[in-house]
Amino acid sequence: MSGSPKAVVLLSGGLDSATTLALAREQGFDCYALSFAYGQRHKTELRASERIARAMGTIDHKTIDLDLGKFGGSALTDASIPVPTEPTSGIPVTYVPARNTVFLSLALGWAEVLGAHDLFIGVNAVDYSGYPDCRPEFIRAFERLANLATKAGVEGERFAVHTPLITLSKADIIREGIRLDVDYSATVSCYSADESGRACGHCDSCRIRAQGFTDAGENDPTRYR
Amino acid sequence: MSGSPKAVVLLSGGLDSATTLALAREQGFDCYALSFAYGQRHKTELRASERIARAMGTIDHKTIDLDLGKFGGSALTDASIPVPTEPTSGIPVTYVPARNTVFLSLALGWAEVLGAHDLFIGVNAVDYSGYPDCRPEFIRAFERLANLATKAGVEGERFAVHTPLITLSKADIIREGIRLDVDYSATVSCYSADESGRACGHCDSCRIRAQGFTDAGENDPTRYR
Repeated sequence: MSGSPKAVVLLSGGLDSATTLALAREQGFDCYALSFAYGQRHKTELRASERIARAMGTIDHKTIDLDLGKFGGSALTDASIPVPTEPTSGIPVTYVPARNTVFLSLALGWAEVLGAHDLFIGVNAVDYSGYPDCRPEFIRAFERLANLATKAGVEGERFAVHTPLITLSKADIIREGIRLDVDYSATVSCYSADESGRACGHCDSCRIRAQGFTDAGENDPTRYR
Repeated sequence: MSGSPKAVVLLSGGLDSATTLALAREQGFDCYALSFAYGQRHKTELRASERIARAMGTIDHKTIDLDLGKFGGSALTDASIPVPTEPTSGIPVTYVPARNTVFLSLALGWAEVLGAHDLFIGVNAVDYSGYPDCRPEFIRAFERLANLATKAGVEGERFAVHTPLITLSKADIIREGIRLDVDYSATVSCYSADESGRACGHCDSCRIRAQGFTDAGENDPTRYR
């Protein structure tokens, strides 16, 4: 039995969450990775999350089925809404209503069962798509909620939501990941990746990722179709 | 098309949420009921929620599968933890970690897709089991989070979490429900109800419900086994 503190790390299979997991491990946490099958168009990112969780020595990795497609309203969960292939203004249609709130809530539930008080999420408020639930004020509000919502909080424990990437550029995130030996060839960022994990090269997520590798001066291992 | 405002109402199939739905409807909302198959020991309360949603003229009723049993840690989701049959002190083992946080988060996601800004939840801080996520301070913290978490919130809409039962005694809740013709024989409160919805009569939830009917001076339609 390790005496290290435990952390629940949200793991999507993308570049940001893989780097977040590496940073949580570097900080000395025993990591419990949590992924969601939430009605994504592609399951390749879940396979990526399994590879990453294994490669990074997580203590446990759970994937929760969560059919957000029942609600619709996002290009990521509703097949009738196309994923944009050009930049758009404002909050894009790939925004999944309340997604990070839902994911953090479930991470909180697991943390409480594990006796963990640390959650990690790879949100970023610099090179991002303008999602409201990636902002620092959202994260602080969730921490406050967590302390009121839980038995552990009532008993005086304090939950922390760690966002080690929140002020980093995509290039800085990539540099951190390379320093920590993250295998970015195992990660999938594309909103429309095909079954074998090959990226479209055109969606918001592909564009931001490619620019990040260019800015970092690093080789981009992304496989395009 | 009705011009009434829309509300998402959390509906468990129990007495409190059925009364909450009746109160939301009385306030003029078009009601969208949301239930969860969250690894409960019994599915009878989900059947009850379907009957209630239909009887009360909801516009839509969705049931989301959510396997909180993967986390364990509660007598309601983990078959290895027995449901207590005697009163206990402190927060009981029937507490499901972060349950109301998870349920409200998903209600928020659906509300945003629907263009609704009103959520209803039948929490009660008087005759309750001591759950932290039934307290007014938790509800206020969730409202604050909702306004930061969502596209609608960023665009200036204000979400409200309505808790019409929060300061009512169980007897007062029952009197309100009877005034609004709630069919309490269709509701299931017991933590260990059998397949046909018959109650154990011994768990916390059964004891609180039975005392409520006695205090209200109303006939208790609960079927015991």
